[in-house]
Amino acid sequence: MRVRFVVAYDGTGFRGLAPNEGVRTVVGELQRCLEPLTGGVPALVMSGRTDAGVHAWGQVLSTDLPDDADLVRIQRSLNGRLGPELVVRELAAAAPDFSARYSASGRHYRYTIVNRAVPDPFLARTAWWVPEPLSLEAMTGAASLVVGEHDFSSFCRRPRGLDDGNPVSLVRRVTGTRWQVLDPGDVLRFEIEGSAFCHQMVRSIVGFLAAVGRGKRRPEDLTAVLAARDRAAAEQPAPPHGLVLWQVDYSGAGDG
Amino acid sequence: MRVRFVVAYDGTGFRGLAPNEGVRTVVGELQRCLEPLTGGVPALVMSGRTDAGVHAWGQVLSTDLPDDADLVRIQRSLNGRLGPELVVRELAAAAPDFSARYSASGRHYRYTIVNRAVPDPFLARTAWWVPEPLSLEAMTGAASLVVGEHDFSSFCRRPRGLDDGNPVSLVRRVTGTRWQVLDPGDVLRFEIEGSAFCHQMVRSIVGFLAAVGRGKRRPEDLTAVLAARDRAAAEQPAPPHGLVLWQVDYSGAGDG
Repeated sequence: MRVRFVVAYDGTGFRGLAPNEGVRTVVGELQRCLEPLTGGVPALVMSGRTDAGVHAWGQVLSTDLPDDADLVRIQRSLNGRLGPELVVRELAAAAPDFSARYSASGRHYRYTIVNRAVPDPFLARTAWWVPEPLSLEAMTGAASLVVGEHDFSSFCRRPRGLDDGNPVSLVRRVTGTRWQVLDPGDVLRFEIEGSAFCHQMVRSIVGFLAAVGRGKRRPEDLTAVLAARDRAAAEQPAPPHGLVLWQVDYSGAGDG
Repeated sequence: MRVRFVVAYDGTGFRGLAPNEGVRTVVGELQRCLEPLTGGVPALVMSGRTDAGVHAWGQVLSTDLPDDADLVRIQRSLNGRLGPELVVRELAAAAPDFSARYSASGRHYRYTIVNRAVPDPFLARTAWWVPEPLSLEAMTGAASLVVGEHDFSSFCRRPRGLDDGNPVSLVRRVTGTRWQVLDPGDVLRFEIEGSAFCHQMVRSIVGFLAAVGRGKRRPEDLTAVLAARDRAAAEQPAPPHGLVLWQVDYSGAGDG
């Protein structure tokens, strides 16, 4: 039967997501722990990649398990083997044609910034520490300008296909952005959702927004940077450890 | 001049607090980073010990620095060297007779439990995962019974002095306890404050309260366990990683 996993992980201790001989990766760990249960290396399809150091609360994967598999027992057994940094939050039967990747209709990311003079050891793994004061108003204004359908070439790592003359589109639709101030007032959370994101897109947008927040760039510069379709026009991407893949939506027929 | 440090640390990566040749400890790291600034190993006095794996938000230390020391620069320099797991939140001049240990008038601890079927990778380092349902009402009832002055022999690791016939008192005064439910409803936080705590006292109390929460012990059993003055009458201490030394109070004249 086709099944859907929802997994959460602290990306700090993993060398990325995809299986990779000899290094600890999220999918590699899941495969290793599933193998004794499925009698072979299962093919796991994920909703999308996260870079090394990026976290997830709601990463989704799909695979096939034997029809008589006891999903409650398998989830419990996996969580016993995987250790505290990687957790299977849900494991459920899905429609036969469900694909974690191709059935996905939307993705939500969160990026957290600790904006105070002194860092916080408890947020060091999951938030970017920015000691210079950031203007939330300026960052909110700039963030609103990425909403809509745009060519995000300025905010994405150039895919290899483009160098071969392969026409890979970097047009994406962002459906919403939001900045939120969290308790105790100096933790800033950015939320962004869209149908799909290209490589390093959220980190590049946050890197630019932080430059706006510091006053190095103006909010309205964002429109010109988008139009430039040139990564050099933007700023350095924000570091990976502030980013969490929060949720993946499946509104289509493929959802189990 | 006498100075007061307020430091926060994620205890996971440290082998305890006190300097110990060849292992990474909180005070050892502070000494190592202070040495080039002070021209010698500074004698650091701390408010009290925390066990290996226990965290702090407001651990306090005192020492002497040259009278012309630039405290703003030293704090910034220390935070640059110490790395993200150990942070100097405050560094300020104190009264000449200030002692982080002997001037302390009260200590506040927090203990966090994640009480849900599936663990949380982002809370794995700082909260105890208890999958069985806990009764907050029963734990609150039991917690109220530790308030006041009691002999906490049943809830403390026996100090070595006692074995030599040395009359070490384990009488302590707890001035308040509180259970709080945190967002999203399955994270439970216990707060306890008192003038001083003996070794493993908070963890032992939380271990007992969790047994009450699970229904293994009744809230009113706590009174009999206190009266027994026997560690065997209590339960296993809760694990260290859920515990944070939150704040140390200095209400006396020694405060700078």
